[in-house]
Amino acid sequence: MKQPVRIGLVGSGFMGRTHALGFRSVGAVFDLPLEPRLELLADATPELAAAAAARFGFSRAIGDWRALVDDPAVDLVDITAPNALHAPIALAALARGKPVYCEKPLAPTAAEALTMVNAAERAGVVTQVGFNYICNPMLALAREMIESGELGQIWGFRGIHAEDFMTDRRSPWTWRLDPAGGAGAIADIGSHIIGMARFLLGPIEALCADAETVIDRRPMLGKPEEMRAVEVDDQVRLLVRFARGCRGTIETSWLSAGRKMQLEFEVIGERGALVFSQERFNELRYYKVEADRSRNGFRTITAGPEHPPYGAFCIAGGHQIGFNDLKVIEIRNLLAALAGGPRPYADFREAYEVQRVIDGALQSSREERWVRL
Amino acid sequence: MKQPVRIGLVGSGFMGRTHALGFRSVGAVFDLPLEPRLELLADATPELAAAAAARFGFSRAIGDWRALVDDPAVDLVDITAPNALHAPIALAALARGKPVYCEKPLAPTAAEALTMVNAAERAGVVTQVGFNYICNPMLALAREMIESGELGQIWGFRGIHAEDFMTDRRSPWTWRLDPAGGAGAIADIGSHIIGMARFLLGPIEALCADAETVIDRRPMLGKPEEMRAVEVDDQVRLLVRFARGCRGTIETSWLSAGRKMQLEFEVIGERGALVFSQERFNELRYYKVEADRSRNGFRTITAGPEHPPYGAFCIAGGHQIGFNDLKVIEIRNLLAALAGGPRPYADFREAYEVQRVIDGALQSSREERWVRL
Amino acid sequence: MKQPVRIGLVGSGFMGRTHALGFRSVGAVFDLPLEPRLELLADATPELAAAAAARFGFSRAIGDWRALVDDPAVDLVDITAPNALHAPIALAALARGKPVYCEKPLAPTAAEALTMVNAAERAGVVTQVGFNYICNPMLALAREMIESGELGQIWGFRGIHAEDFMTDRRSPWTWRLDPAGGAGAIADIGSHIIGMARFLLGPIEALCADAETVIDRRPMLGKPEEMRAVEVDDQVRLLVRFARGCRGTIETSWLSAGRKMQLEFEVIGERGALVFSQERFNELRYYKVEADRSRNGFRTITAGPEHPPYGAFCIAGGHQIGFNDLKVIEIRNLLAALAGGPRPYADFREAYEVQRVIDGALQSSREERWVRL
Amino acid sequence: MKQPVRIGLVGSGFMGRTHALGFRSVGAVFDLPLEPRLELLADATPELAAAAAARFGFSRAIGDWRALVDDPAVDLVDITAPNALHAPIALAALARGKPVYCEKPLAPTAAEALTMVNAAERAGVVTQVGFNYICNPMLALAREMIESGELGQIWGFRGIHAEDFMTDRRSPWTWRLDPAGGAGAIADIGSHIIGMARFLLGPIEALCADAETVIDRRPMLGKPEEMRAVEVDDQVRLLVRFARGCRGTIETSWLSAGRKMQLEFEVIGERGALVFSQERFNELRYYKVEADRSRNGFRTITAGPEHPPYGAFCIAGGHQIGFNDLKVIEIRNLLAALAGGPRPYADFREAYEVQRVIDGALQSSREERWVRL
Repeated sequence: MKQPVRIGLVGSGFMGRTHALGFRSVGAVFDLPLEPRLELLADATPELAAAAAARFGFSRAIGDWRALVDDPAVDLVDITAPNALHAPIALAALARGKPVYCEKPLAPTAAEALTMVNAAERAGVVTQVGFNYICNPMLALAREMIESGELGQIWGFRGIHAEDFMTDRRSPWTWRLDPAGGAGAIADIGSHIIGMARFLLGPIEALCADAETVIDRRPMLGKPEEMRAVEVDDQVRLLVRFARGCRGTIETSWLSAGRKMQLEFEVIGERGALVFSQERFNELRYYKVEADRSRNGFRTITAGPEHPPYGAFCIAGGHQIGFNDLKVIEIRNLLAALAGGPRPYADFREAYEVQRVIDGALQSSREERWVRL
Repeated sequence: MKQPVRIGLVGSGFMGRTHALGFRSVGAVFDLPLEPRLELLADATPELAAAAAARFGFSRAIGDWRALVDDPAVDLVDITAPNALHAPIALAALARGKPVYCEKPLAPTAAEALTMVNAAERAGVVTQVGFNYICNPMLALAREMIESGELGQIWGFRGIHAEDFMTDRRSPWTWRLDPAGGAGAIADIGSHIIGMARFLLGPIEALCADAETVIDRRPMLGKPEEMRAVEVDDQVRLLVRFARGCRGTIETSWLSAGRKMQLEFEVIGERGALVFSQERFNELRYYKVEADRSRNGFRTITAGPEHPPYGAFCIAGGHQIGFNDLKVIEIRNLLAALAGGPRPYADFREAYEVQRVIDGALQSSREERWVRL
Repeated sequence: MKQPVRIGLVGSGFMGRTHALGFRSVGAVFDLPLEPRLELLADATPELAAAAAARFGFSRAIGDWRALVDDPAVDLVDITAPNALHAPIALAALARGKPVYCEKPLAPTAAEALTMVNAAERAGVVTQVGFNYICNPMLALAREMIESGELGQIWGFRGIHAEDFMTDRRSPWTWRLDPAGGAGAIADIGSHIIGMARFLLGPIEALCADAETVIDRRPMLGKPEEMRAVEVDDQVRLLVRFARGCRGTIETSWLSAGRKMQLEFEVIGERGALVFSQERFNELRYYKVEADRSRNGFRTITAGPEHPPYGAFCIAGGHQIGFNDLKVIEIRNLLAALAGGPRPYADFREAYEVQRVIDGALQSSREERWVRL
Repeated sequence: MKQPVRIGLVGSGFMGRTHALGFRSVGAVFDLPLEPRLELLADATPELAAAAAARFGFSRAIGDWRALVDDPAVDLVDITAPNALHAPIALAALARGKPVYCEKPLAPTAAEALTMVNAAERAGVVTQVGFNYICNPMLALAREMIESGELGQIWGFRGIHAEDFMTDRRSPWTWRLDPAGGAGAIADIGSHIIGMARFLLGPIEALCADAETVIDRRPMLGKPEEMRAVEVDDQVRLLVRFARGCRGTIETSWLSAGRKMQLEFEVIGERGALVFSQERFNELRYYKVEADRSRNGFRTITAGPEHPPYGAFCIAGGHQIGFNDLKVIEIRNLLAALAGGPRPYADFREAYEVQRVIDGALQSSREERWVRL
């Protein structure tokens, strides 16, 4: 009989449901060291919580996240509440010595994130932040090819995360545009490509960034006549230098017409190159430097059982895993860490390092100069 | 409180696990009329069944599928056992008036499939066969565009399902090569593209086919010196005529180097055309005939919340659903039918019609002539 | 000083100009054994001929192709006149022992083409027919990979040539729809993919075809009220068996919405596969069977100096040759043959063999049965 | 009878031949106001010049470019000599009031280029520099879509020119690595993407760049033991701000494994976006913001007669023009300007402006700060 991990979930929006789905599936997909149980769900009111608990399969519901954190039957606190609540909930859980699983962003600023990191490291518990795109088997392959030297010395990185969901200037002002809640395109989506860059190539030691607010006023929700100033970035472009020696660019925008998930990178090395797009995340394009140029070219590797843990989901290549499966892998990693396995990617410390890059970029842009991190 | 549907699953291989995963997830993804419960799992021995039941989350386990079919606590019989067992299990379940969910192929021959169809129609219960690729939101979009007249009169179809898993001539003889178990490439994988063709364009009324066995001997498993003759097709190519008037081709092969899931079609109409590949099943390429040719070209539609039920899985386009999510949609359709909703795609009758096309193709090839279905 | 070849061109339409361009360029691109001179141009009237001669750079002009054929200063007769004139002009030239360069199709029927072949073989002169797509360096690479055994035993072929220029049912009846002039989609464009199939894999020995006329009436030019019946095919689909043992399909249509040049093939072999599209004819996709599946996938080879004679046009890969450059290669091959080099691809015999496949397909369709060639 | 323009070509390397090819073809492709004649070719020795003149079709040859410039029978001086000779030849020609056609780069530094611009403007003659990629019909379409407002307000640009021809660290030190001759990747190839950016979006007013020399020593040609320091950049990455208000990035590298012609851009606007790659320069990807998102996506426009002057080369879409055809268009533009038509793209002034961006980028990188141009 496996030891249970009783989950306390705060929040029941889309990400809350995604977490619940992941916890429901993970045990059938992977042979786990622990058995997750959907113990308690907290939301803003008891009624909301009860409805979500029934839908997601939680045993109990409650209208107060503080009570959830305190509940002795909750072993792991899982935070999918609005961004502004991440810090208070996480700090309360850590104060009780409970491991925390938190959606990204960890916090709106690096300073607040650092408080959380310190609390987590003092508590000595497992933490994890939801950078699930990085749990992709093809990203694991990419990192393996970089770290093993298969690509040779790395000479360049070109990353972007662009989407188009803020393109319409009539779309209303939302929490995403509030510097205290979201923090602009770089925090909201750019954090993914910054995280990927770090996952693949390690720390960024210097950067020069250009941030801009393109649509500087948005109508208030329900009051299209009333406009509110936008104070966060719509687009940020960065020159970056990695501590390992290579350089590159990173871009982010939520104003990029037609792009649904242009989370893309190229890694260029002396012996080969990789090209990836999240829009086709079951593929990885690879060029291998070979003596015979007449038969050579970028090849498209299709995710298959050769790329663990793909085989846990699908019996053969070409079937494809989906977004929710990336969450299942993330949860597998979390449960493995709770059972004494390796630190999961990304823990609070890693999420804080991503936040430092974001803060550095915004500072660089304000001061129009290079910044060392 | 929703009415439960107690699932009795026979088989615990990869597809068994996929079904279990689907039943575990479906309630959190969709707002269902019924609540599936993982009641009983049967496998070849009580031990195998118990281990799988624990892994998949079934309440009980049993070593005999007959007892599962008879069990009064089983409301739905779900068959993922080897192909040869599909008919006996399904017939036993139907004799007891129980709805049946069966993996494809329904049966190795159309004759045996017809017995199952007749039993199902006599019983008057819901049946479903696992053609889950067709549950793809982009396939629903394709069919809608065809049926609404958006593509104009349909002039052509070009379909293929090719993979490469039998390419190595040293790979051993398996059940797939046994006419009594599998039935060659056309039955094993070609059935998917035949099903898609029917889903999109309706019945095929005539065909002329060319089937061939390319690797006519395979080594016995574990005895590479001993060769066994292969009696089933490796590749089949068909000229087809649909009852609606348009014509096309359909091909299938499991010897197609480099192809992992080349389940592809083109539908050409007077006002537009569609191109689809299962290897990128969150996309649909679409050409719309427009007066201004200077800005026109095939566009790539990315699956998003505009394409139900994609939005039940992911909050925005570009996130992508995976193979296992297609199974979740299939199970949603099944549960909806059990609650009195529309006949799910594909029921036993539909699976039998696919089988008739396969049998017709093999007959056409043997007799080297056109066959009317 | 190189020996001159004095060109007599009949016809000054688009293909006439393309030929003239080719003869003007070829000497600067290739180191030739002979020097082509634009000697004489014939068209329907002396005025038309004179204007075209001035534009294309011919020394003289004439209003009668017969006089051109007889002109002692014409060494090579180049035919870009309407299809119905190909045979009389070619036969007259061959009767005078002059080599002939003729645009495709050689003749509307295989019978007429055979007369031309026999005349050419009696005359013992060089002939060439304008299948210039096959002069592509990437096609040479493909054939080399097939013939050298690099792809292993060949198991399948899948070819198509589809365009959309006849898609609009209001577009008027033209000579293309006259069985005596054009001869339907299979003759007009299908001949290209049939020629490619033969170039790559050799003779087709049996086929079963399904031809259809989809738009069976077209308005007369300038009289949209008056409709004329269409007697030629719009679409033809073929099952084919090559003499070498492998099988495949070939399709053609001029009703394929959105397709500008879907002249495409896949060649599947035991050790690799090739995928080609004329719409990107500077590329060849290649899958090589390798032991390590984890890094494998279809690669895109880009035409470069490694693929002769690409390097005669561009100094590096990625620059790309164009349609008119394929004609320059064709003319280089012709001039080499005139200087005693190898028989050019495609001579009259080869064009006749393509025509036999077309005739066989139309017969097969009429009689609804397999036809041996 | 058209007025002739007698060409005096200096240089007979690959670009010399490309120019000769263009002058030979242009009259048959376009209806020109003037008739180019291949009058005189100069190279380092009379023998070299004579051989090239014979091959390319020039009437006369000479071993001294000064004599060519002075020759009264030369109307246009065409410079494809080594970069270091561009200035002296051009200045001599301009001093004699002769129009000049010069390969890129105009000069190794902006200062020298400015001298040439001033001389040209004093002389009041037509000049042109060989940025032929920009003569692509699809680039004309892109600019039209930007300038007409079809894409709405422009919000971003992302450009790159990367190739892999310097990737091998054993490849020897060449003139490209000499700051006095070539000037690194940004001058050699980056100038193309900078030119395209300016062609599409106008002047760049500020930039911040990061240039690096990755392989800082190369073996001397023929003496692999002897290494020479590399003083020019291998890779440069830029943040740019256009005078029109939008911002973007530009990158260049000649160390990019697998890239043959990654000359690519994305232009993002409020009402649409464009994506272009020189590796498929007969295509332009276009996303148009439309109300119905369910059928929308990036479409691939294929070059056709709707995109002038494509139709002068090929009768229908999908045939494709090649690299040498871009040169033919460039020469058409030059001849039109000589006949009193609009200033060709790019004249000396434009080439100088590109050079200023390059110099600005190198200064920005040296000083590690933003630079206003």
